[in-house]
Amino acid sequence: MANAEGEQPLLGRLLDPSPQPNQKQTNKKGRFRRCRSAPSVDVPHPEKIVGGLLPGSQIIFGDLHPSFVQVATLLTIYLGAGTICFFVVRNQIGGGKTNGILDAVYFCVVTMTTVGYGDLVPNSPLTKLLACAFVFSGMALVGLILSKAADYLVEKQEMLLVKSLLRHKGGEREIVKELETNRVKYKFVLILILLLLLIIAGTMFLYWYEKLDLVDAFYCVCSTITTLGYGDKSFSTKMGRVFAVFWILASTICLAQFFLYLAELNTERRQHLLVHWVLNKAMTSTDLEAADLDSDGVVSAPEFIIYKLKEMGKIKQEDIDLLMEEFEDLDIDQSGTLSISDLKLAQSSQRWS
Amino acid sequence: MANAEGEQPLLGRLLDPSPQPNQKQTNKKGRFRRCRSAPSVDVPHPEKIVGGLLPGSQIIFGDLHPSFVQVATLLTIYLGAGTICFFVVRNQIGGGKTNGILDAVYFCVVTMTTVGYGDLVPNSPLTKLLACAFVFSGMALVGLILSKAADYLVEKQEMLLVKSLLRHKGGEREIVKELETNRVKYKFVLILILLLLLIIAGTMFLYWYEKLDLVDAFYCVCSTITTLGYGDKSFSTKMGRVFAVFWILASTICLAQFFLYLAELNTERRQHLLVHWVLNKAMTSTDLEAADLDSDGVVSAPEFIIYKLKEMGKIKQEDIDLLMEEFEDLDIDQSGTLSISDLKLAQSSQRWS
Repeated sequence: MANAEGEQPLLGRLLDPSPQPNQKQTNKKGRFRRCRSAPSVDVPHPEKIVGGLLPGSQIIFGDLHPSFVQVATLLTIYLGAGTICFFVVRNQIGGGKTNGILDAVYFCVVTMTTVGYGDLVPNSPLTKLLACAFVFSGMALVGLILSKAADYLVEKQEMLLVKSLLRHKGGEREIVKELETNRVKYKFVLILILLLLLIIAGTMFLYWYEKLDLVDAFYCVCSTITTLGYGDKSFSTKMGRVFAVFWILASTICLAQFFLYLAELNTERRQHLLVHWVLNKAMTSTDLEAADLDSDGVVSAPEFIIYKLKEMGKIKQEDIDLLMEEFEDLDIDQSGTLSISDLKLAQSSQRWS
Repeated sequence: MANAEGEQPLLGRLLDPSPQPNQKQTNKKGRFRRCRSAPSVDVPHPEKIVGGLLPGSQIIFGDLHPSFVQVATLLTIYLGAGTICFFVVRNQIGGGKTNGILDAVYFCVVTMTTVGYGDLVPNSPLTKLLACAFVFSGMALVGLILSKAADYLVEKQEMLLVKSLLRHKGGEREIVKELETNRVKYKFVLILILLLLLIIAGTMFLYWYEKLDLVDAFYCVCSTITTLGYGDKSFSTKMGRVFAVFWILASTICLAQFFLYLAELNTERRQHLLVHWVLNKAMTSTDLEAADLDSDGVVSAPEFIIYKLKEMGKIKQEDIDLLMEEFEDLDIDQSGTLSISDLKLAQSSQRWS
């Protein structure tokens, strides 16, 4: 399945220049008036700038909500087209049938999630090739759901959970701070709870409506959410297939998202270890020399920050080189610093060129 | 499936402090003697430092090769244990049998990759629960293979491809440079070629050995690599199951890796767009003020770099705040810069405390 771990939320966050709620006031010794290099509030919202500069970037840089709508629309189109296709060729699909339209939706969902029970199987070359087309596009769509919509939904619920947990403790500020710090952990716990609920719901449903014994019901649930789908046990009644359409989509996506969060937690843990190591490593004279970008013999605060960020692996030498080039281009008066005079020189040269 | 897009290679790269081959010489106006904040060559290798400081970090921060060995070992253990388990309970598994051991390996692979044809199905409570355990651990293992070993193998082949492509053009340096710039593209092309070869091999095999017609063979291939596995067509001969054990593992992982690279390409494209926009955006006086960390009225090169990196979303305000605090702690003589005297003060205070 396609992966885009936190891709949209990340982009969403990086394009939001509003001061982050858990910014600590770090000028504790009062030597730096403002140590935030964040664009200040009077700068127009980058998203608007991007939208103005790059055509079509509204789609590329769209925030969470529009991409959720986009995914929902695509899913509806996919299921609609799938249902029509498989309903038209329903006589070329063999196996235990219930109701024409219902079986078509059910077959479509079982195919797109790659569960593939085999209780309904295409038995003509046309339907076989149609199934091939639908499984590939279905996989891509599930990947899109995982990268865009699923994370969005979990984040929404997460906000509610943290709000209810911290109701007596603090205001909006504390909630957002708590969320920022332990975001992945909360998401992981939430998805785990959701997954357990879906497993229990599926098992109970199969036990009562499909009349399977408890082990068989649990086995069918596991075989479904993992997309294994041996097919010896599946949903054979009308009611069962109605339930299956929603439950299979939700539970397979939920398990995949669970694994994604697990990987994210692991990555975060490694990153924390690395940051911890970089922060606790003593500076040596060699470090001082290496960090001294302008070779003036001392390391200023921004030089120190760049050096440590590089050690943490957050930035690469290429990024620094690229920006250094850009800086030297902008520094028209060659003073070694950018000032209002450089901006004025740049404007006048633009006017003349 | 678990995702850890480029996790290991990234960690591997960020822990390797050797100057990167495509570092551009940016001191083109000669005003900055050395604009690399990279630790210079006489600094001991961070990996060794990490290894010395954190027990067990060799495993966490191990480079590509050991993690590949680790994954291969885990896969062997998994398949070994799976084969023994399913061989012991072979009488509680129903369906078309060929050879005891072979069927056990085949069932194990079909389960761990979540293909689940259903040509062999567990038919006792014990085997059903065993299959549940094996499918969950199998999914985790496939995730691990995708995050660690698969990318490593593709990277190895990539080096060979680029070498052969650039044989007449340049030396080692050009090859590495070309690789760094278009890494994801080469990987994507390679995995696409590999996937097509696996599809052709699978289709041909099913056509000749399993005597399926061409459409059925292709349909079975698609149904397998997507892990759909309806199970109406599968590997039923001894020879077929020997082939299937290797081919199913390779092709399902290959398709998943293909989707991962597709997502990576997409993320890279977005990142490029954003960097392009940040670099081409004119600096305003508001930007100048926001970038001026130490409020001296001018923006130095490192201040400019930090500001732009933040706009690019590569770093967050939290990172800057954290490091600013660290800097102020280290700046014992409160001069606003770090120098040898700060280091000496730190050493002597350590001695006294």
